[in-house]
Amino acid sequence: MGISMSRPIITLTTDFGLADGYAGAMKGIILGICPEANVVDISHEIRPQAVRQAAYVLSTVTPHFPPGAGTVHLVVVDPGVGGDRRPVAVRCARATYVAPDNGVLSLALALDPPQLAVRLRADQPISATFHGRDLFAPAAARLACGASLDQVGEPISPAGLVTLPSLDPQLQIDGSWLGEILHVDRFGNLISNIQHPIPNTRLAVWVGKERIAGVIRTYSDVAPGELVAYVGSSGHLEIAVRDGSAAARLGVGVGDPVRVEGLP
Amino acid sequence: MGISMSRPIITLTTDFGLADGYAGAMKGIILGICPEANVVDISHEIRPQAVRQAAYVLSTVTPHFPPGAGTVHLVVVDPGVGGDRRPVAVRCARATYVAPDNGVLSLALALDPPQLAVRLRADQPISATFHGRDLFAPAAARLACGASLDQVGEPISPAGLVTLPSLDPQLQIDGSWLGEILHVDRFGNLISNIQHPIPNTRLAVWVGKERIAGVIRTYSDVAPGELVAYVGSSGHLEIAVRDGSAAARLGVGVGDPVRVEGLP
Amino acid sequence: MGISMSRPIITLTTDFGLADGYAGAMKGIILGICPEANVVDISHEIRPQAVRQAAYVLSTVTPHFPPGAGTVHLVVVDPGVGGDRRPVAVRCARATYVAPDNGVLSLALALDPPQLAVRLRADQPISATFHGRDLFAPAAARLACGASLDQVGEPISPAGLVTLPSLDPQLQIDGSWLGEILHVDRFGNLISNIQHPIPNTRLAVWVGKERIAGVIRTYSDVAPGELVAYVGSSGHLEIAVRDGSAAARLGVGVGDPVRVEGLP
Repeated sequence: MGISMSRPIITLTTDFGLADGYAGAMKGIILGICPEANVVDISHEIRPQAVRQAAYVLSTVTPHFPPGAGTVHLVVVDPGVGGDRRPVAVRCARATYVAPDNGVLSLALALDPPQLAVRLRADQPISATFHGRDLFAPAAARLACGASLDQVGEPISPAGLVTLPSLDPQLQIDGSWLGEILHVDRFGNLISNIQHPIPNTRLAVWVGKERIAGVIRTYSDVAPGELVAYVGSSGHLEIAVRDGSAAARLGVGVGDPVRVEGLP
Repeated sequence: MGISMSRPIITLTTDFGLADGYAGAMKGIILGICPEANVVDISHEIRPQAVRQAAYVLSTVTPHFPPGAGTVHLVVVDPGVGGDRRPVAVRCARATYVAPDNGVLSLALALDPPQLAVRLRADQPISATFHGRDLFAPAAARLACGASLDQVGEPISPAGLVTLPSLDPQLQIDGSWLGEILHVDRFGNLISNIQHPIPNTRLAVWVGKERIAGVIRTYSDVAPGELVAYVGSSGHLEIAVRDGSAAARLGVGVGDPVRVEGLP
Repeated sequence: MGISMSRPIITLTTDFGLADGYAGAMKGIILGICPEANVVDISHEIRPQAVRQAAYVLSTVTPHFPPGAGTVHLVVVDPGVGGDRRPVAVRCARATYVAPDNGVLSLALALDPPQLAVRLRADQPISATFHGRDLFAPAAARLACGASLDQVGEPISPAGLVTLPSLDPQLQIDGSWLGEILHVDRFGNLISNIQHPIPNTRLAVWVGKERIAGVIRTYSDVAPGELVAYVGSSGHLEIAVRDGSAAARLGVGVGDPVRVEGLP
């Protein structure tokens, strides 16, 4: 048997930004406990306290990481730090997750169901405002380096983990589906909660004050500057302006409605 | 012979930003295929669809990476994703490059001429909008881990790769050189397309409505707040305000003209 | 003796941003000289030329990295590049530091006193504007890979290193303490220079036009939207709005006064 070059992976998803030292301090703590960890930045640009945005971004990323006990996803978007929300670690088939129990994991766990969960235990005095550094990072590092869940916390029921309210689209009385915008990406593309649509020219999409005829395969099928509805890379219905910003063009953002109906 | 600690390097240059999960998903795919890869972020802050900016930034970085088949530069600035632009991998003396064939590699390849090129082959169904994750990242990972070019695609002629229109400065009838601003950096420094000037007090530089007497060695040779023309770290003529922003002071940006003339 | 999986760590703290190739070029140089280095981004989002901000951020991060000769903190916030400020490397008990000698290290070195220092020597011609790439990165890489300080420079007195002017709070004639805001973080939290306060309901904090009664443990002890003074994770007195921005609410920024007084 040869030497495996594979190192445990710890991904970081936070709302800390990179102009402060918060993410850096977490990296230092991790490397002190688990020097061989491969620390991978997913995002430190989650909007402050935006639990749902973090949950969405995480859920688009975790399915693409290699499965295994050595893959740990650490998420710190934690408006309740120092309060009574629980700090947790959750073991699933594909990975281990470490985060505050505020729903930030719920979209990822819907794709990778929990097998075991613990409430993290602090092994030393910790600050009241920076559990990312003092509690979550040490736990993630120990788990990545081989600790078992019960070495970092007390068992809790996975069924009791907080989940975000469902944002499933609703079937309307006229047979159309009413959904909403989940996320606006850097390109101004509008990502809806309507999942797994199939390209179909017999559909119409209403968003903002616009009606878009047809759900197509990709924005490259239209001319630059044109508005288009298509199936995005996360499997959701998206609305874009090719080589432009649909968010800016339509004045539409997170939470705004989108409606899909069949053509007569 | 000892164990080499050197790991293959995959650099990432994209317009994905870090508020979404796009770059993170690519990292996950890479580490699943080539766990020992050292994934290095160059930039995810290229302006959306800004192929020329990405080409410039890449060309200032690639000469500083260690040469070798294990160095792969992966670039995803891809306004034509899902259309008919070709996804390519290019082997050169110093490194291997993976990108859409839209010119984004052309400035780097001018410094590291192509030896072999392939059009990437998709080994599985891929999304129409995120080839960074589904096509480019897997190819880069396989190449970094030792795959040959013909294992990831079909040979094409390196001479047929798309190049950006030349932005060389033009000699004017009065003997001056007319160039333009290629790039404005974070400091507001204006980087022109006039290459390898030599510090010379007998030159004058015109930019915006200002005339700067002399091309000097560096901005530290002038007082804070002073406007200065000098030889930048990428070998181009640059214009800066010491401890300030020349772009803001002059109202000048990418594409604006700059003229250099000898003093009488 | 087994094979250590621990790799030397080089952290990066700069004002280069990530839209340009400056940080990427440094990473390439480092990996060419010391391929096993674990290059860790602390921040490239320091405001341009903001030496004090960089010094503060660095000092909040360095205590959390594992101690050892293989930990190198590289800082390039360098308004004086190309001028006569000294490029230095400093060895301390916990780590080695590489930076321009402009005070940017002084807050970190106050926590990790210097043992040896050298003025860096250029081993080859270097640019006048990018010592991060041409001088600091090569030195940091050689030190991380085992070079001694005298292999990269000439000894200088650690006592002669530039320190930033002290920003200690001042005791006022009425018995109150007058401090100032050191840093505003991404959340709009105001971090003062008043260190190691103890939660105490018998204190009042004046900042902007507001008076806050009591220094408490954490913002989770108040309701969302409420203004609060508490002991921050770096041990400083901070002022926050729970789930909001104190900087925006109070119109207060770096350098503005904060006063703490006992209640009668």
